[in-house]
Amino acid sequence: MWGIELDRSLDVSLKRQIYQKLRDQMMNGTLKEGSPLPSTRELAQTLSVSRNTVNEAYDMLIAEGYAQSRQGAPTRVVGGLILDQAKQNAAQHHQEGAPASSFLADFKTGQPDLRQFPRYVWQRVSQKALGEMPMELLGYGGPQGLAQLREEIAAWLLRSKGLTVDTGDIYITAGATQALHLVADLLHTDHPEMLAEDPCNIEMIQTFIHKGYTVTPVPVDGHGLQTDALSLDHCGPIYVTPSHQFPLGGILPAARRAALIRFARRCGSYVIEDDYDSEYRYYGEPATPLYAMAPDRVIYIGTFSKVLFPALRIGYVLVPRELQSRWRRLRTYTDVQNPPFEQAALAEFLRTRKFDRHIARMKKLYRERRQALFDALGECFGERWRPWGDAAGLQLAVEFSGIAFDDSFREQARRSGIRTVPVEYHSIRKGRHTDKLLLGYGHLEPDEIRLGVHYIQQFINDYVQEHTLHR
Amino acid sequence: MWGIELDRSLDVSLKRQIYQKLRDQMMNGTLKEGSPLPSTRELAQTLSVSRNTVNEAYDMLIAEGYAQSRQGAPTRVVGGLILDQAKQNAAQHHQEGAPASSFLADFKTGQPDLRQFPRYVWQRVSQKALGEMPMELLGYGGPQGLAQLREEIAAWLLRSKGLTVDTGDIYITAGATQALHLVADLLHTDHPEMLAEDPCNIEMIQTFIHKGYTVTPVPVDGHGLQTDALSLDHCGPIYVTPSHQFPLGGILPAARRAALIRFARRCGSYVIEDDYDSEYRYYGEPATPLYAMAPDRVIYIGTFSKVLFPALRIGYVLVPRELQSRWRRLRTYTDVQNPPFEQAALAEFLRTRKFDRHIARMKKLYRERRQALFDALGECFGERWRPWGDAAGLQLAVEFSGIAFDDSFREQARRSGIRTVPVEYHSIRKGRHTDKLLLGYGHLEPDEIRLGVHYIQQFINDYVQEHTLHR
Repeated sequence: MWGIELDRSLDVSLKRQIYQKLRDQMMNGTLKEGSPLPSTRELAQTLSVSRNTVNEAYDMLIAEGYAQSRQGAPTRVVGGLILDQAKQNAAQHHQEGAPASSFLADFKTGQPDLRQFPRYVWQRVSQKALGEMPMELLGYGGPQGLAQLREEIAAWLLRSKGLTVDTGDIYITAGATQALHLVADLLHTDHPEMLAEDPCNIEMIQTFIHKGYTVTPVPVDGHGLQTDALSLDHCGPIYVTPSHQFPLGGILPAARRAALIRFARRCGSYVIEDDYDSEYRYYGEPATPLYAMAPDRVIYIGTFSKVLFPALRIGYVLVPRELQSRWRRLRTYTDVQNPPFEQAALAEFLRTRKFDRHIARMKKLYRERRQALFDALGECFGERWRPWGDAAGLQLAVEFSGIAFDDSFREQARRSGIRTVPVEYHSIRKGRHTDKLLLGYGHLEPDEIRLGVHYIQQFINDYVQEHTLHR
Repeated sequence: MWGIELDRSLDVSLKRQIYQKLRDQMMNGTLKEGSPLPSTRELAQTLSVSRNTVNEAYDMLIAEGYAQSRQGAPTRVVGGLILDQAKQNAAQHHQEGAPASSFLADFKTGQPDLRQFPRYVWQRVSQKALGEMPMELLGYGGPQGLAQLREEIAAWLLRSKGLTVDTGDIYITAGATQALHLVADLLHTDHPEMLAEDPCNIEMIQTFIHKGYTVTPVPVDGHGLQTDALSLDHCGPIYVTPSHQFPLGGILPAARRAALIRFARRCGSYVIEDDYDSEYRYYGEPATPLYAMAPDRVIYIGTFSKVLFPALRIGYVLVPRELQSRWRRLRTYTDVQNPPFEQAALAEFLRTRKFDRHIARMKKLYRERRQALFDALGECFGERWRPWGDAAGLQLAVEFSGIAFDDSFREQARRSGIRTVPVEYHSIRKGRHTDKLLLGYGHLEPDEIRLGVHYIQQFINDYVQEHTLHR
């Protein structure tokens, strides 16, 4: 009766089920405009529920405007409820691809070794943060980020890179990607143009491309950005990685740094310095940030993803002062602020120098892995390979002279269980770096590295043979 | 000698201090291009440091390209280091304003009572999350959000609002503001246009305005958006709060909901449903989301800020399927993903129904506070006030007939220690709601409410007198 069946096993209350069935009938026209609903007594009896349950269901229908009640008259269906015939919504929701089958050789880039992350220590500093957070910081704390974290970052920048920074110039972000996203919005103009190192991290500049920026590539050699290729015909923010060029690995020399700053001043634009992994320099101190040379012209982006773990999502930006009030407004309307607990945990991790100790430990480990990679490459490729760049970071660009890794290489390798990216993939203008592969080694044990390089050797041999045959 | 003084009390290593002093001299021209640096032996002696320390400082200068060494010759300063005279960077970094002196009456909106947040329970679920997080989720987990949290949200939407949602259609965000920010980017066109309830949360639509959207206001009455004012001359995404209109408080009736969906279908556009506080409905069930009526046309934005705490920064969006692949790409290039630990903590909080219990407890508390506000208003204003909207949420729009709260009111009240916002502040077209104030009461104890209303009464009396005198 009334086409209503209740399912008492559901996690949905009976009144809501009654409401839903009646509502559906109104929406599809079974219960027409002006029709009276059954009396609550009658429906309660039919459905074996209390009259109160039916009353509450009717109250929901009335409150949401599906039905109207008038003193002494039955509750009736209102008009105007019928939708146009909905288009068949055949779209499927996005399905995650099947998980990548585990690779035989997985030289992906940008991944620290998560197995080494000191989880227990992180748990302890997190618990401290959870217990000690002042109540008011559960409310809105402002777009700049937790003061105690900014103080610890300033102290760390001083002791690790000799950089003197006012905590007022530090802005916490939800990671380096968000920092770039905010910078892209911050510097946006009517016809936005930017300059980027070529090759560069091609994923990172997508953020700018998505926002309509035209990208002018500036070539890179073994020492980073070739500043003599800069021209005032193309002015705009310049995205650079001066401490450890991604992907070729150079440290930008001081004279080029000075030229870059002079160029930015002449353009009236800014340099975006992405310092994505300079903590890991294996012979010598981390290179000094470009920011030190011109705090008014350089937007410095720092990250903790490579030292701690990528999912942490905390980065920071040193923002030139004349951009700071716009930055605050922008962050407020983007996502308000970072959550406080992880900021406080990280501040404690820095304050107690557990951060420094973790870096020191990992540096030793990564240096050994880098050596294992060099040894394996020497063993497998003899004289036919050459490393690029400074001894730093978690990946290495390797030149294999005489071999051209074309567009198909990456996918072919993937199908053979090998993950490595040709430098060409990260190039804006194609054709200049076809003989180089990028090998991320930070997350791999020495044995995994050795084995991986052997698989790569086999695959490259086959690849070269096939390509020679096809010529 | 050499103008170098070392400070052994600093947290900066001696080699870095030497490097910095020499670098500064090169940058300012004291040490000129081609000049030889002192021999390491000589400098080490002068500074009373080991020769190794000086060697390391020189290595830094060479690695960063400030100096060059050639076999058998002294290390010399390179050329091209001098910057143009830097403009005096007189800009000060942004200073936080002095903290708001505590208000006599603080009826700010959008703030739950943080004193009531079950911190101990949250600590426990957080600790569980910290201990049990699988290692791979410390890496990149994808833009959609933690699967276990999406499952718990789906279960909760079913039991609390009768909404059946596929977990594949749920996208976690860093709060509702970020959700709007992403939606604004998602629906962006060359000449973006949107429609908004008028009045509406004027802060929220700033996100669209910042991105260049033209905003067409659609008037609101006591029942929410006046759909008969919609016209096909102005098509675009429509921002609405159908469960509890902000700020006037109406529940959008079913017939208007159907009209709104029909309009969006005809426009080929989307309805943006901001469900910012529907959990707190004091007499009856939460209103059913508009999303239930047309999952292909409604982008539903849910938040946990009002139930838990604003700094949590976790929200979720029900994304129509044809927008999902763009959404994923967009989120990836915006800030990659939410951090995992808080997501897992919230999932556990939902799974154990601590969330439901917290809502039930707070609902009782907020209902009492709402009653205290009604009582106080009755006591102070007799018949000269009228409440607007449904009994829901954490704020109340109050009409004071015959009084016009003009632009100066908010600031004047603030200076007198009273925080309350005229509805006019949230109006796009001014002049239609000058007789209404918005009072946020959720965060106040009944005593604070009573006292606050007395202060408001005094202030309004003075305000009216002054305005009468000036006429």
